[in-house]
Amino acid sequence: MQSAPAIQKLLDELERLPGVGPKSAQRMAYWILNSDRATALRLAEAIAEVKDTVRFCSRCFNYAEGDLCEICASTKRDQGILCVVSEPRDIPPIERTAVFSGVYHVLGGALSPMEGVGPDDLRIAELLARLASEPVTEVVLATNPNIEGETTAAYLARLIKPLGITVTRPASGLPVGGDLEFADEVTLGRALETRRPL
Amino acid sequence: MQSAPAIQKLLDELERLPGVGPKSAQRMAYWILNSDRATALRLAEAIAEVKDTVRFCSRCFNYAEGDLCEICASTKRDQGILCVVSEPRDIPPIERTAVFSGVYHVLGGALSPMEGVGPDDLRIAELLARLASEPVTEVVLATNPNIEGETTAAYLARLIKPLGITVTRPASGLPVGGDLEFADEVTLGRALETRRPL
Repeated sequence: MQSAPAIQKLLDELERLPGVGPKSAQRMAYWILNSDRATALRLAEAIAEVKDTVRFCSRCFNYAEGDLCEICASTKRDQGILCVVSEPRDIPPIERTAVFSGVYHVLGGALSPMEGVGPDDLRIAELLARLASEPVTEVVLATNPNIEGETTAAYLARLIKPLGITVTRPASGLPVGGDLEFADEVTLGRALETRRPL
Repeated sequence: MQSAPAIQKLLDELERLPGVGPKSAQRMAYWILNSDRATALRLAEAIAEVKDTVRFCSRCFNYAEGDLCEICASTKRDQGILCVVSEPRDIPPIERTAVFSGVYHVLGGALSPMEGVGPDDLRIAELLARLASEPVTEVVLATNPNIEGETTAAYLARLIKPLGITVTRPASGLPVGGDLEFADEVTLGRALETRRPL
């Protein structure tokens, strides 16, 4: 295909983005070419700005613009309940539920012997230091409900329970609004095992 | 949702891209946050570079980095056959077929009384000037096979045929490799009307 080198370079860079193949890269590139200069440069600047200003929160390792992330800096959060997640990207979905008002701790991954990720590769020492110095009474282990996440939660539960802190994990079960007919057997099995009295 | 302002700004700008909703913008933003600085900035720079260096070819109005686009600047193209398209984005798919070796002319749209696009809004005067000065013997009207594209092709055919230049249009019909069973009736009807002896 005959493309100007600058366009080809833009296509190559766009295709690196997750979920972007050649066709969508081309649609985006033409949108950028067609849009006015200011609009296109706002996107370029937003990318540069995020790399310049965003780092890890010194306390919970969420993304932050200052020393602390917006959640750690807030005076409205319950400091007694701490939610452990694998990655910063796991925080926004939990925040959107508006059910959790505590603080977070980002591990930076999950235990995975297959991929050579051990306890020392995660921010577990930092978590234990926080539990020793902060007034935490409950830790919610919100790692993913897959093998690595379950392993990580089991490992952390063993470490934290002896400290006299309540350890919980979000329930697994049927998605709200879903059809029982279409549930996978593992989820349905888990939902039956953990059935609750009404 | 509690996001750092720089992340929120990046999400807003990513969501402007065609085909990008909140979920994919978030995936892209986290990819940018996770990737090393150089990779992220290459994308930002590719966007800025394309806006700085890419303009319209002075001859055919394709995107170009210099005065002429790569196709007009090439010595290998057949100057006797000229393909008329609506937009620069229509050129790469034609180039990928490797069937066409002529040159192009980009109209910058298609006639649309509904949207108030008339002949003066398209680069039709520029096309006629080229036909008067260049050794063109055939014009391929490759506007889209929809109402606006068909109208534009019919309008241009009426202007160009009196000049003694052959005017053609790509065939409409069944997609190669497609199933007759799943063809829409308009396409199948057109394919039957324009059936060819074997």
